[in-house]
Amino acid sequence: MFSISLGELATKINGKLEGDKDKIIHQLQDSQKCDSDSVCYIKSSLYIQKLSSNPGAVITTADLAKEIDGNSIVVEDPYFSFALATKIFNVGYVKLNESIESQIHPSVKLGQNSVINSNCKIGENVVIHDNVSIYPNTTVGANCIIHSGVVIGSDGFGFAPKNNKWQKIYHLGGVDIGDNVEIGANSAIDRGVLGNTQIEDGVKLDNHVHVAHNVRLGANTAVAAQSAFAGSVDVGKNCQIAGHVGVTGHLSIADGVTVLANTLVTKSINKPGVYSGIMPMMEHNESLKFIAKLKKKSE
Amino acid sequence: MFSISLGELATKINGKLEGDKDKIIHQLQDSQKCDSDSVCYIKSSLYIQKLSSNPGAVITTADLAKEIDGNSIVVEDPYFSFALATKIFNVGYVKLNESIESQIHPSVKLGQNSVINSNCKIGENVVIHDNVSIYPNTTVGANCIIHSGVVIGSDGFGFAPKNNKWQKIYHLGGVDIGDNVEIGANSAIDRGVLGNTQIEDGVKLDNHVHVAHNVRLGANTAVAAQSAFAGSVDVGKNCQIAGHVGVTGHLSIADGVTVLANTLVTKSINKPGVYSGIMPMMEHNESLKFIAKLKKKSE
Amino acid sequence: MFSISLGELATKINGKLEGDKDKIIHQLQDSQKCDSDSVCYIKSSLYIQKLSSNPGAVITTADLAKEIDGNSIVVEDPYFSFALATKIFNVGYVKLNESIESQIHPSVKLGQNSVINSNCKIGENVVIHDNVSIYPNTTVGANCIIHSGVVIGSDGFGFAPKNNKWQKIYHLGGVDIGDNVEIGANSAIDRGVLGNTQIEDGVKLDNHVHVAHNVRLGANTAVAAQSAFAGSVDVGKNCQIAGHVGVTGHLSIADGVTVLANTLVTKSINKPGVYSGIMPMMEHNESLKFIAKLKKKSE
Repeated sequence: MFSISLGELATKINGKLEGDKDKIIHQLQDSQKCDSDSVCYIKSSLYIQKLSSNPGAVITTADLAKEIDGNSIVVEDPYFSFALATKIFNVGYVKLNESIESQIHPSVKLGQNSVINSNCKIGENVVIHDNVSIYPNTTVGANCIIHSGVVIGSDGFGFAPKNNKWQKIYHLGGVDIGDNVEIGANSAIDRGVLGNTQIEDGVKLDNHVHVAHNVRLGANTAVAAQSAFAGSVDVGKNCQIAGHVGVTGHLSIADGVTVLANTLVTKSINKPGVYSGIMPMMEHNESLKFIAKLKKKSE
Repeated sequence: MFSISLGELATKINGKLEGDKDKIIHQLQDSQKCDSDSVCYIKSSLYIQKLSSNPGAVITTADLAKEIDGNSIVVEDPYFSFALATKIFNVGYVKLNESIESQIHPSVKLGQNSVINSNCKIGENVVIHDNVSIYPNTTVGANCIIHSGVVIGSDGFGFAPKNNKWQKIYHLGGVDIGDNVEIGANSAIDRGVLGNTQIEDGVKLDNHVHVAHNVRLGANTAVAAQSAFAGSVDVGKNCQIAGHVGVTGHLSIADGVTVLANTLVTKSINKPGVYSGIMPMMEHNESLKFIAKLKKKSE
Repeated sequence: MFSISLGELATKINGKLEGDKDKIIHQLQDSQKCDSDSVCYIKSSLYIQKLSSNPGAVITTADLAKEIDGNSIVVEDPYFSFALATKIFNVGYVKLNESIESQIHPSVKLGQNSVINSNCKIGENVVIHDNVSIYPNTTVGANCIIHSGVVIGSDGFGFAPKNNKWQKIYHLGGVDIGDNVEIGANSAIDRGVLGNTQIEDGVKLDNHVHVAHNVRLGANTAVAAQSAFAGSVDVGKNCQIAGHVGVTGHLSIADGVTVLANTLVTKSINKPGVYSGIMPMMEHNESLKFIAKLKKKSE
């Protein structure tokens, strides 16, 4: 287990500690789940009311620190400082993973040139085809089929902006895949930042599907080729997502929702039904005229 | 060759045999091509008139069975029972493939960590780059170039729904690729359910192209990056499909068709020409106003 | 270094040399950069004014040759003949690469089954995850992270049409990747035709991103999953390109531009700002009515 004192952590992320410098912290956590051994960050007052009752410390601004009880590390930009903190805790994450041998059920069929890194657990009767890459900290349930070229557990796409550059957010979570899941060729599933990306039982993914960090795909949801779920999207059970669909970050989709091909989901969908949003295909000249008339009518 | 009696098959898919229980069946086939050694399924009366003249047996409903001569296996949900049958015949498919060594022409340049499974045939002067995965039952013609990360012959995305779960349809077909075909990095071509996915001579695919089960891409058709063809799509010769195009299942596209970028093809295209369907890009504030006005005008 | 006389080159591409048949040429180059040791092509008078001052020779039409000083190889279709020429010069390109061992900094962490071909240079502290494929002639700067399944340096998608067939344009360039670049799982970056595809310092690419030949992505630009840049697109610094965005060929995007998800960029963007172009998602029945009304209103 990784350990760091609040004093040392504050120094390393260029923050000012208000509280107990000798307190030992073991984890970074979400502000809603932050226990007394952990540290979280809060960048806006919106999150204060959902803050867990006894966090080890909170990385936050001077103003917000006044409203938060207990230890705080005061910084200018909490999200950027959180990104710096992920790098520190990543040392522990990597060491932890490297020291834990993966458990691969003897019935697993492992394709040629497929790689299972440390601290993974692969269940009964799983078939992993050729050239699959599984990063550390991935769990795969029973009877799953993982097609060639699939990547599971890659770093999510998370960066904190500062002075026109990007500070990498190290991903300390993993990927949890349930039973009876099938993942199509060349799909990619990123691991979570703090918690795990979750693919529930019976989910079916077609080829080239992108699942970002901390997404949840509910049980028996099916996703067609080249659809993409941005970070922290929550999709219910028994959904059908057609091809080339995009879902923007942090949205939720209810159980039993069907989204038709090429649709961009830009707001949460709260009730079952069929949703779409595409421009109709026409002969190109007709399409140009159609668009020109729409523009004229809308002036 | 795999063999099963109609009686045993009926029992395994929970159907009621009407006919000769001792008749031996070797294959699952499409209803239009089903010969006397094979079994097919019919889920709607629409398919009866196209049924081949002497099928070994038909998996169908009690009502439809009355209209069909010869042996039938009566089930509640023919598509679901067909899915169960694919699992049974898959045993023979896998055994067949495993026993047949692939024929790789001595002139083939095989990249590092590329895998060619059993029962494949790779033609003269083919270049296969690194980390390519080729499933069993794939044929590649002469002078093809297959770029890194390509997957050929993966299971198509086919599942029969039942009680909010998915029954896998095992894919018993293969992939046939003609001569002078080039396939871009990380593209994926699924094999057919019963017949073969077909990529004809001179086809050029860019990176990240998805070709589903039983698609045909006609000779010299070119497809730009991240376009996707759903199951059983039939594309003619000399077509130009731009990037991010989607074609929904079972459609056909005539010879000489151009489809511009990001278009979703939702109906068959029966004559040559240029087709498109995209929302014009604007400054985002203008786009929001444009959409708001369109919505208002259409009330 | 590859060498060919103008006489031999003209014969091999079925052209008629007007000029010095014994002159030795070493390279194919862009018409704007063509030095006296090189040959380029010009297919339209638009390019004549930008032609470099002392080209070794120009592949062009009889009409255009009259307007160009110096050696020319007269052909019917300069683009097709250029394609033939790339094949000839490719021999030198391949030989050059094969003879130059890659320089991999000892600090590089190379994942399992990852392949680095000849004539590459990989900088300090680069992490290359598993099953990555790097073609010859790729440079990667310091502190980069390349995720599993990434392909760098694959042939661009370039073909010259002739008689309903495609003549491959061999790609003689490479890929230059700066420092602090991160490339997401299963992304693909093609190498340039003549010059190099350029990914500048601090660029961050998500999963399944497609970067075509001769694209430039400016410093610190971030690109979300499944976006695609067609050939020769030029993107400025500090841009944010959301997921499923497409940018069509040869366009340029200014510094500081944000393009929202699923937008197709069909014209160059010359000033910073936020751009979008998507059809709004609705319940499918509403969407069908909305489109029907738009069509009616636009009649």
